[in-house]
Amino acid sequence: MVGAPVPVRAAPADPALADLELAAGDASSPDGFSAAGVHCGLKRKRPDLALLVSDRPAAAAAVFTTNRLPAAPVVYSRRAIAGGRARAVVVNSGNANACTGGRGEEDAAEMARLAGRATGAEEGDVLVASTGIIGVPLPMDRLRSGIEAAGEALGNPALPGHGGAAAAAAILTTDRFTKTVAARLELGGVPVTIGGMAKGAGMIHPRMATTLAFLTTDAAVPAPVLGDALRAAVGRTFNAITVDGETSTNDAVFLLANGASGGEPVSSEADLRRLSSALTLVTGTLARMVVRDGEGATKLVTIRVEGAADDVQARLGADRLAGSLLVKTALFGQEPNWGRIMAALGSAGIELEPSRIEVAFGEAVVVREGVGRPDAVEAAGAHLAGEEVTIRVDLGLGPGAATVWTCDLGHEYVRINGSYAS
Amino acid sequence: MVGAPVPVRAAPADPALADLELAAGDASSPDGFSAAGVHCGLKRKRPDLALLVSDRPAAAAAVFTTNRLPAAPVVYSRRAIAGGRARAVVVNSGNANACTGGRGEEDAAEMARLAGRATGAEEGDVLVASTGIIGVPLPMDRLRSGIEAAGEALGNPALPGHGGAAAAAAILTTDRFTKTVAARLELGGVPVTIGGMAKGAGMIHPRMATTLAFLTTDAAVPAPVLGDALRAAVGRTFNAITVDGETSTNDAVFLLANGASGGEPVSSEADLRRLSSALTLVTGTLARMVVRDGEGATKLVTIRVEGAADDVQARLGADRLAGSLLVKTALFGQEPNWGRIMAALGSAGIELEPSRIEVAFGEAVVVREGVGRPDAVEAAGAHLAGEEVTIRVDLGLGPGAATVWTCDLGHEYVRINGSYAS
Repeated sequence: MVGAPVPVRAAPADPALADLELAAGDASSPDGFSAAGVHCGLKRKRPDLALLVSDRPAAAAAVFTTNRLPAAPVVYSRRAIAGGRARAVVVNSGNANACTGGRGEEDAAEMARLAGRATGAEEGDVLVASTGIIGVPLPMDRLRSGIEAAGEALGNPALPGHGGAAAAAAILTTDRFTKTVAARLELGGVPVTIGGMAKGAGMIHPRMATTLAFLTTDAAVPAPVLGDALRAAVGRTFNAITVDGETSTNDAVFLLANGASGGEPVSSEADLRRLSSALTLVTGTLARMVVRDGEGATKLVTIRVEGAADDVQARLGADRLAGSLLVKTALFGQEPNWGRIMAALGSAGIELEPSRIEVAFGEAVVVREGVGRPDAVEAAGAHLAGEEVTIRVDLGLGPGAATVWTCDLGHEYVRINGSYAS
Repeated sequence: MVGAPVPVRAAPADPALADLELAAGDASSPDGFSAAGVHCGLKRKRPDLALLVSDRPAAAAAVFTTNRLPAAPVVYSRRAIAGGRARAVVVNSGNANACTGGRGEEDAAEMARLAGRATGAEEGDVLVASTGIIGVPLPMDRLRSGIEAAGEALGNPALPGHGGAAAAAAILTTDRFTKTVAARLELGGVPVTIGGMAKGAGMIHPRMATTLAFLTTDAAVPAPVLGDALRAAVGRTFNAITVDGETSTNDAVFLLANGASGGEPVSSEADLRRLSSALTLVTGTLARMVVRDGEGATKLVTIRVEGAADDVQARLGADRLAGSLLVKTALFGQEPNWGRIMAALGSAGIELEPSRIEVAFGEAVVVREGVGRPDAVEAAGAHLAGEEVTIRVDLGLGPGAATVWTCDLGHEYVRINGSYAS
């Protein structure tokens, strides 16, 4: 089930980031971080319990789901991170600890206590995340032994669960592959690393945090600055992807900055900009991996809407296209069905002038001045046969533009979700 | 492909409608109306051209799609019906005449002229509707011969395309069965009939008109009153169903009242209320047929949200459940996965108090006070095995309530829409 990460092309680099290098790596790549992932029995066979820890307290920021029935770990971690500091994260897959009432809240708190003991972090410096089935109480006996085993693996490279790759495998649910990346650049006068891991693959939708992702850096960043940078990066990446239009009860993105690089705290305007851009590259890479691994997906689809009255209108149009079942099934069928693009645009509630609309699949312009170009259909079909597809819409009205990512919808989505154990 | 209508249970009758009888029948059932449906070559083999005509000018009202790229026939008919009068309707399936530019507008106008000639109606009294593929110009030569043939069949019961059943078959696209119904009641001092036909089966979503439907009555109803009654009926029925979240470029519901029953014009408060309730029963029956025949659907799902802060909040919650891919695929898999119901509710943007939420599949209460009841899961699963499923949610907060209808999402939806000719 869990193979090597599929390479996903990064967004065009910011010119101010010429020295940045995106590389293999994970959330344990930055100095002072270690991680582990083990199997404790929440899932039948696959790893299901991860620990991520810094060797010192770190500045911390988070973005949480906007779902109004947040799971117990979301409620717990929102409180724990309020002071802007954390040292360790404990994550389980296979069970969301959501809709579990008062017992769920106690279980999330106990996870934090156990993880504190296993990592040496103070209980108040531990964040908790869970993903998996909703409404089933956590089997705490399994979690107790799992957290203990992961704690042992943390510091011992000879143990099988040691390392960031094992942690990345342990947070997955219906994913087909692990999602990790690292970036290296100079910041605060020294080389620093940003690392991250994420999970997919269902309940992905752009409404303030859309998955679980854990980001780390050895840069020194004051907590308020860290929060601003995280929100900016998530807004343009994790919040610009959709798989199925669902918003999970458990979504969260955490970012810990421990300063182990020894550099100066990031504070200049230029360094803040570089931090924000680098984070956006890291979260963008992870976000595109999530879409690429969307439940049942065969294609990574980039949707670009330009020429809208403003950016908000462009985003509304792009979101509507990205969420349309008829567009997504046409992509699965590799049909250059531009009529469905037009119908979806028309229902996005945005300003449109039919005679100005241009639609392209890849380089093939299938609609110009609002009318179809039959000559372009063959080239459009050839573009849709690939694994990476681009739909570009120019509304011809103004300067607004937005890019979002989605995937196609095929039989496998129905198979996975029609049979997922309730 | 086209068989007998599947019987669909009507909504509970208004006590003021004790004499109302829902019966087999169609848009040609009311006095003075006739209809025909023929094959003219827009589709390969099935009928694709329908005429519906009153023997005298009728009061007329309509509801149109809110899609901002409306098809040419929508633009044409919106203008034609502005005076509140019509006599004939021409409908083709197999081609939407949408995104077809200036030529599309000319073609819609020519359809009206041809239908006027074939039915004896004045050109200005003809309404036009189209459904099918977007972006392909209408083959007008076929329409010319089709409208002529349908005109001949109108008045000649010996011809194969004669009658309301043939018309109902000619307006279908991916539908598996025709959708017609009639209602009989006393109004204006005489017995009157209301008849109707509708098409499905994709691009169905509650945003002001969600399909094509053609309603007729021999009651005498002034046009403004007719419009009010139609909008009220559509709001509670055609606008309360969803199949796939899409809003078509072509949606329209027409209602013609020709007064051929000889009764007094409907004007008293009591008669208006009876007309409105009877119309709601007719449109509700057709709407549930549309959902029952949703693309790939195996179940008709009624979603009832009660105890919301107000009716608007209840409707937002019900709409979110009805549109959730995870809920719809769980229904296809017959999984009583109440966690998905909770997650979808949480993302509806409505007021919630987790500990007050109750969720039932049929009579099986699977969530009480926000927490799962494992004992009820077996009974819930048994309910989900049926073809008609009810999900009831009580939010425990206030008097708000709403009912909507949806269907499950299965492999057949993907098959139909992944391969539909572009």
